Amino acid sequence: MLNFQDKLRAVWEKNNSLLCVGLDPDITRFPSALEKRAESIFDFNKMIIDATHDLVCAYKPQIAYFAAYGAEEALARTIEYIHENYPQVPVILDAKRGDIGSTAQKYGEEAFVRYQADAVTVNPYLGYDSVAPFLEYKDKGVVLLCRTSNKGAADIQDLEIDGTPLYEKVAEMISSKWNSNNNCIIVVGATWPEQMSRLRALVGDMPFLVPGVGAQGGDVEKLVTAGKTTAGTGLLVSASRSIIYAGSGDSFADDARSAALDLRDLINKYR
Amino acid sequence: MLNFQDKLRAVWEKNNSLLCVGLDPDITRFPSALEKRAESIFDFNKMIIDATHDLVCAYKPQIAYFAAYGAEEALARTIEYIHENYPQVPVILDAKRGDIGSTAQKYGEEAFVRYQADAVTVNPYLGYDSVAPFLEYKDKGVVLLCRTSNKGAADIQDLEIDGTPLYEKVAEMISSKWNSNNNCIIVVGATWPEQMSRLRALVGDMPFLVPGVGAQGGDVEKLVTAGKTTAGTGLLVSASRSIIYAGSGDSFADDARSAALDLRDLINKYR
Repeated sequence: MLNFQDKLRAVWEKNNSLLCVGLDPDITRFPSALEKRAESIFDFNKMIIDATHDLVCAYKPQIAYFAAYGAEEALARTIEYIHENYPQVPVILDAKRGDIGSTAQKYGEEAFVRYQADAVTVNPYLGYDSVAPFLEYKDKGVVLLCRTSNKGAADIQDLEIDGTPLYEKVAEMISSKWNSNNNCIIVVGATWPEQMSRLRALVGDMPFLVPGVGAQGGDVEKLVTAGKTTAGTGLLVSASRSIIYAGSGDSFADDARSAALDLRDLINKYR
Repeated sequence: MLNFQDKLRAVWEKNNSLLCVGLDPDITRFPSALEKRAESIFDFNKMIIDATHDLVCAYKPQIAYFAAYGAEEALARTIEYIHENYPQVPVILDAKRGDIGSTAQKYGEEAFVRYQADAVTVNPYLGYDSVAPFLEYKDKGVVLLCRTSNKGAADIQDLEIDGTPLYEKVAEMISSKWNSNNNCIIVVGATWPEQMSRLRALVGDMPFLVPGVGAQGGDVEKLVTAGKTTAGTGLLVSASRSIIYAGSGDSFADDARSAALDLRDLINKYR
């Protein structure tokens, strides 16, 4: 079985895509074709996945949208469905976990054993020993928050340590110490292209998960130019709401496909 | 219905206790009286709760231990059981959530609507707008990581901004801006009494959730002396493994009670 990084490289090429589609199933926004209830979540995800699988480099289910509805079973089925039908597409469980070692180990089991995700997002605030239990899954990806896409990111992540913002310190730490199994990815918001170019210079070819295009307004040209590697890859540009809620009628899956195609091609234009 | 802070003050007094018992149900460590399987989790918790409810100021279920086993139902039943039988004891869901606003809102629903917790632990790394959706639940407690109990805490939390460690900056931010609904609590590891006294001076009477005694080795005299308020309260000293796995035979619940009683009284000795 391919490890996460190899799987990612293969799908970047096969689907000619740096687009990661976020699965944030908000039942209040479900299309008219589906009942607005937790029982529809799997069907909604399945239709989005079937319509977009050849256009993406990853799917990123956001666990909060399942947990709020008690829909863990739908999350498990969604991931299983992707693995069985589109095994070339890796699944990143967006959970932003982070806790002391003994607890982090249980979160590792949640992500990688229970849900069989290929990667999980993790918060670095508790330091190395809180991340180590995830890093030990050598074939999995550990996606660490660095500079997030939200406005409040600046509150803590931009505080300067001897003239260097915290998020750069975090990136340096990840790159120089935490990445010894070569399974780290960092989260860099699309909304901050300047920070992104500094980070690209700091961490070499380490992949970036880039939320913040679409609903959050990040500029695709700027982010791709700032974030791509010399090979023209290195990015998982993540969009959720702008893709999965592109339409709200019977043709919502086709609408999602169109939105995914447009964004994939826009990203490719600047690679 | 009492809000979290009032409930906490009332139970501090009623049970004469600053002890918070962490419910970390690791099935591999279950006593011989119970089968080592996920189906035993609720029974294990129930027996611990029945044996300790008059000695504690809060219970703190750690969601990772439920999530790893797919035991969300057992978590919901555990919290419901506490509310129904010991309504004076608040429940802190230890989940360390943290995400952008729209997702944080879903995590808020998970903690406060689905699980009906009285408080939830939250990671501050993403800044104010990621915490605001939790703070808006005015009657609930929002327990923010500040200086955690693990060794790796120093990696990021101790980095200095103009001579002030990050965790102090975080505490100042919480105290001066995030606490306008008076529903914040901060996490300060028992393993760092010096940092704890600085923090107590910075944030006034804000309660501290203090993990790190027991299995992690924090010194009770030092932490209580450093962390208590002038009223001799202000602390939720959290112990999990040293209480719930105090015994492993048929008398495990009595053993948990003895361990809880000893720790409660030791804490009280230094108030």
